[in-house]
Amino acid sequence: MVLEFLAPIAAFAALILAGIAAKLVLREDSGSSKIKEIAAAIQQGASAYLKRQYKTIWILVFVVAALLYFMPPGNAWQSSVAFIVGALSSSVAGFIGMNIAVRANSRTAASTSGGLERAFKVAFRGGLVMGMIVVGVGLLGVVLFFTWYGAVSAILSYGFGASFVALFARVGGGIFTKTADVGADLVGKVEKGIPEDDPRNPAVIADNVGDNVGDVAGMGADLFESYVASILAAIIVGATVVATYGSGAVVFPIWVSAIGVLASIISVVFVRVKKGSNPSYALNMGSIASIVITGIITFFLSQQAFGPDVGLSIFWAVLAGLVSGLVIGLVSDYFTNNLYKPAKFVARSAQSGAGIGILSGFSVGLLSLVIPIVSISIAVVVSFVAAGIYGICLAGVGMLSVTGIVVAADAYGPIVDNAGGIVEQAKMPPKLRSITDTLDSVGNTTKAICKGFAIGSAALTAIAMFVAYVSTINLNNPNPIVLNLLDPNVVAGFFIGGATVALFSGMTILSVGRNSFRMVEEVRRQFREIPGLMKGKAKPDYSKCIDIAAKGAMKELLIPGFAALTIPLVVGIVFGKAALGGFLAGGIGVGLVFALLMANAGGVWDNAKKYVEMGNFGGKGSATHAAAVIGDTVGDPFKDTAGPSINILIKLMSWVALISAPLLLLL
Amino acid sequence: MVLEFLAPIAAFAALILAGIAAKLVLREDSGSSKIKEIAAAIQQGASAYLKRQYKTIWILVFVVAALLYFMPPGNAWQSSVAFIVGALSSSVAGFIGMNIAVRANSRTAASTSGGLERAFKVAFRGGLVMGMIVVGVGLLGVVLFFTWYGAVSAILSYGFGASFVALFARVGGGIFTKTADVGADLVGKVEKGIPEDDPRNPAVIADNVGDNVGDVAGMGADLFESYVASILAAIIVGATVVATYGSGAVVFPIWVSAIGVLASIISVVFVRVKKGSNPSYALNMGSIASIVITGIITFFLSQQAFGPDVGLSIFWAVLAGLVSGLVIGLVSDYFTNNLYKPAKFVARSAQSGAGIGILSGFSVGLLSLVIPIVSISIAVVVSFVAAGIYGICLAGVGMLSVTGIVVAADAYGPIVDNAGGIVEQAKMPPKLRSITDTLDSVGNTTKAICKGFAIGSAALTAIAMFVAYVSTINLNNPNPIVLNLLDPNVVAGFFIGGATVALFSGMTILSVGRNSFRMVEEVRRQFREIPGLMKGKAKPDYSKCIDIAAKGAMKELLIPGFAALTIPLVVGIVFGKAALGGFLAGGIGVGLVFALLMANAGGVWDNAKKYVEMGNFGGKGSATHAAAVIGDTVGDPFKDTAGPSINILIKLMSWVALISAPLLLLL
Repeated sequence: MVLEFLAPIAAFAALILAGIAAKLVLREDSGSSKIKEIAAAIQQGASAYLKRQYKTIWILVFVVAALLYFMPPGNAWQSSVAFIVGALSSSVAGFIGMNIAVRANSRTAASTSGGLERAFKVAFRGGLVMGMIVVGVGLLGVVLFFTWYGAVSAILSYGFGASFVALFARVGGGIFTKTADVGADLVGKVEKGIPEDDPRNPAVIADNVGDNVGDVAGMGADLFESYVASILAAIIVGATVVATYGSGAVVFPIWVSAIGVLASIISVVFVRVKKGSNPSYALNMGSIASIVITGIITFFLSQQAFGPDVGLSIFWAVLAGLVSGLVIGLVSDYFTNNLYKPAKFVARSAQSGAGIGILSGFSVGLLSLVIPIVSISIAVVVSFVAAGIYGICLAGVGMLSVTGIVVAADAYGPIVDNAGGIVEQAKMPPKLRSITDTLDSVGNTTKAICKGFAIGSAALTAIAMFVAYVSTINLNNPNPIVLNLLDPNVVAGFFIGGATVALFSGMTILSVGRNSFRMVEEVRRQFREIPGLMKGKAKPDYSKCIDIAAKGAMKELLIPGFAALTIPLVVGIVFGKAALGGFLAGGIGVGLVFALLMANAGGVWDNAKKYVEMGNFGGKGSATHAAAVIGDTVGDPFKDTAGPSINILIKLMSWVALISAPLLLLL
Repeated sequence: MVLEFLAPIAAFAALILAGIAAKLVLREDSGSSKIKEIAAAIQQGASAYLKRQYKTIWILVFVVAALLYFMPPGNAWQSSVAFIVGALSSSVAGFIGMNIAVRANSRTAASTSGGLERAFKVAFRGGLVMGMIVVGVGLLGVVLFFTWYGAVSAILSYGFGASFVALFARVGGGIFTKTADVGADLVGKVEKGIPEDDPRNPAVIADNVGDNVGDVAGMGADLFESYVASILAAIIVGATVVATYGSGAVVFPIWVSAIGVLASIISVVFVRVKKGSNPSYALNMGSIASIVITGIITFFLSQQAFGPDVGLSIFWAVLAGLVSGLVIGLVSDYFTNNLYKPAKFVARSAQSGAGIGILSGFSVGLLSLVIPIVSISIAVVVSFVAAGIYGICLAGVGMLSVTGIVVAADAYGPIVDNAGGIVEQAKMPPKLRSITDTLDSVGNTTKAICKGFAIGSAALTAIAMFVAYVSTINLNNPNPIVLNLLDPNVVAGFFIGGATVALFSGMTILSVGRNSFRMVEEVRRQFREIPGLMKGKAKPDYSKCIDIAAKGAMKELLIPGFAALTIPLVVGIVFGKAALGGFLAGGIGVGLVFALLMANAGGVWDNAKKYVEMGNFGGKGSATHAAAVIGDTVGDPFKDTAGPSINILIKLMSWVALISAPLLLLL
């Protein structure tokens, strides 16, 4: 049947599109020798970071793979192999995607002379490579292991491997990017009074590298993992409901994902900026088109696979996920975009000082999470009513089916951001800078939407894995364990899960602080010791700054990473299997609240500052601006380090639970 | 048997001690005419606030009492009467306690000329009145309704009435106090450059009133409610386990409370400051002594009541609560007191600017909540293993049994704070101000401990009420409802519960912002329009400022208060009884995290600022100080409005669930 080939076709189509887009990007003019020089520095920095990251990761990957080999049940080598390949897949996707993104930076900068539409095209194509590689490689990996192993628990390790890499890419990348950002700003802008992106600043290249490392590679690894995990969880839970839904239940999640990939590819044609139209409109059109197309095809496919009645229920489950993903994205945009009331309100509050501005942004962050959480709750209820716990997993698959286009739109953001930096550093005409500024403001919207999407999908994925965990511990169990909220072990697990999120967030924010401190020292040292640096007569040592940020990020990651991996295991062993279920629930519940709060509060502080910089409430240099900048400083690690890290944390904890379930069953 | 009289004896003993302490306070010299003048203004302001608050409350009390009359089950008038008397009890306790506290302010100020020991004594006696009234009135009310109605659900309404008043006293008081504080600081200190507590500042009296309104009356109402609620929940759950534990299970919670009251009274003798010793030591000795005494007597009493084996288990349950209350208090102190590392670290971070200082304080807040939450989890597990869900309720009773001494030590704080303000306004010699400063620094420790205690006890009370709710919906139910975390309604309720906490916190912080804005306008107007005000030749219109803060606080309270009362009901009706259970769990879990985070982050920012003001890192007037002040501005509504409001919220939501359970059973 043709459906069998659907997923491989979709995966290869995505990879081919990625290849074409990459080729088109690389064919672009890479600009003046000045641009080339800067671009080369960024490329070198990004490679240096990746090298250090992979070195750290790959030692640990083999350690964990060895541990997996000794874990019950018997199919141990399968688990180890899947884990290693999962880690490799995520690394490769990140490596290629980021390398193209880095090259797209300078080419976007160079293409600004061809006008906004042209620059937009180059940047979007750069992002498209990342988006298509994520879904292409992810879907291919799932299909490969599913064909090879079947619906056995060992395939889960493929996702666990991806999760392991995401921990480093997302959390480490988050620490790296904010270290560089704070270091560059504190010494450059504040102490030395030189503009942002000034080539005299020793941390400026690290800052540019950071955007690629955190926002492109980190976000890609995050969504790669959610994407793969949601499909795998649905396959495993699907295998337990074959009696009810027929054997189609096992492969259906793969089909939906394949449709989402094809829909994303088709909807690329909708992403085009006509002269004078808003690029943000073009990017949103792409996402909406792919959601609509996926929805329509799923409607028919589900009836084909399950018959008209059951098929309709299944369709509702997928749709619930698709729609709630859209809602979360749009709400995040509303609460953070400076076109709307909340950001303007925060900017206005900053008139009464930094303290009041921060309080307003924090409140906005708190209020912003209500609708997304209600929408996830509704998606859970609707999908469960439609198709039980299998339905909940399908909602996750549905939401993530359009990952390709969402990541493409997101990766566009840091590319134009960096292009702006290069235009500045290369001293290109202000007219061209205004083009990158326009493109960048759009990038903030897509970033906000994607961040909301990443959080919502991480939560839904974690819920699906939680469901899979409970299915696993109750498989062939005559006395199924009930996660009863009156069971004190469940309650204890639940509270500790919430506390773990707080612990992890606190540690990552402190990591940024410590690492920034090292960076500030180094930047100060260079200004002090390199003669002629301030006058632009000598070049700073960019690579030293990159090295400090990278080394520190990996170092700072170890303790929180170790905590995330071991606390679930300890809770499971000390308080029992039910407590571990409660732990996941507490972690997901508190984690969802904090992830949304930090992302949106951080976003609204950032955009309030930009709103002031647009000339409102006194504009740049005013006291209001100074207050807004403080808000942005607080928001930076919120939205780019601690917030996104929570996505990784709740999934990683769920993985540990799921993978160690067979072990806990022996205790 | 003598035990029957134990509770009334303890209650009356507490009231008598309150009377003696009040008399001793009032007998003190009320100072110079200048002091008397200021004191009169504060008294008038406090009365004006209370008048407005009670006017708002009492209309609504009768509305809710009428609604209760029509609620199932049949014993409707009992419920209404208990509700009204509960509201009245809390109001009376708050009214008397605050009135004495206000009078103790000026007398403490006047007694500074007699030295530190003398001033300490006056201030502690003032706080003791509040502490003893809370437990005396609370215990008496419980005994009264228990004797009158028996262990029927109608007695719960007594606690619900107290909860209703606490909503206004604590949340309204919290908005009032921060409105006045921000208004006084922003215009007085920042714009006009006059010192804190300067009598020329129109908001200065409102600020003084605020300390009494928020920290004395608000905290008192909060703990009054927890105190009463924990006993009532234990009685109701005790009645369901009579088959296992005998009829003693119903009255035992009352006995433990009585012992705690007597132990608190005895331990007052330990609160004495010898020349040169630290007053903080004296206050902590009081609390620790009462915990030890309560523990020892409970050890014997429980074996008397339940026999040696069961009695020992029961003892462990009570002890788990007592100990975890102590742990939470001490940990809160460690993370906020500027004697220890965290506050110094935050102060040092402020050297790198306000943003970094705020991030450090926020991280400290996140890390500070781990041990308290783990300790509550352990208390839940230990008490459950010891005596099932009845044990969990007893842990709450145990923790709260020493409420009398804890509230006394806490109310001491705002009294000496205000005494310092009066010394300043009355232009008394700096030597006397340094006495109040020493006393005040101790007050901050006791406040931190009490805040931790209030949060921990609120959580444990809410858990006990949650347990009582589940018992109620499953009473005589052949198919008991299980709060299964795989039930999507429970999951939805759980998420919405967490989101409600965020919504409520966001709204209360915004309320402070809006209300402060009104206040700032008024203070500016007075400086502008009253001729000679800046020169000290004319008096400002203090009462106008108080009126604005009070009116605004009540107005701002209505929407969040309405939300807190109705959302649980809506969740119960729309998603069902199990979902409402999940809702409470989500609310308590997320609420506990946010309450601790906000209290401790707020506390550490405040004390970091004070640490800088002590001359560290540049001292007053330095850039570090300016940065630390911004942190304190953010922390103020965290620790004094939004944080404490969460205590009220999670209990209020639990009350609504518990009271409406019979109604939900009919649906």
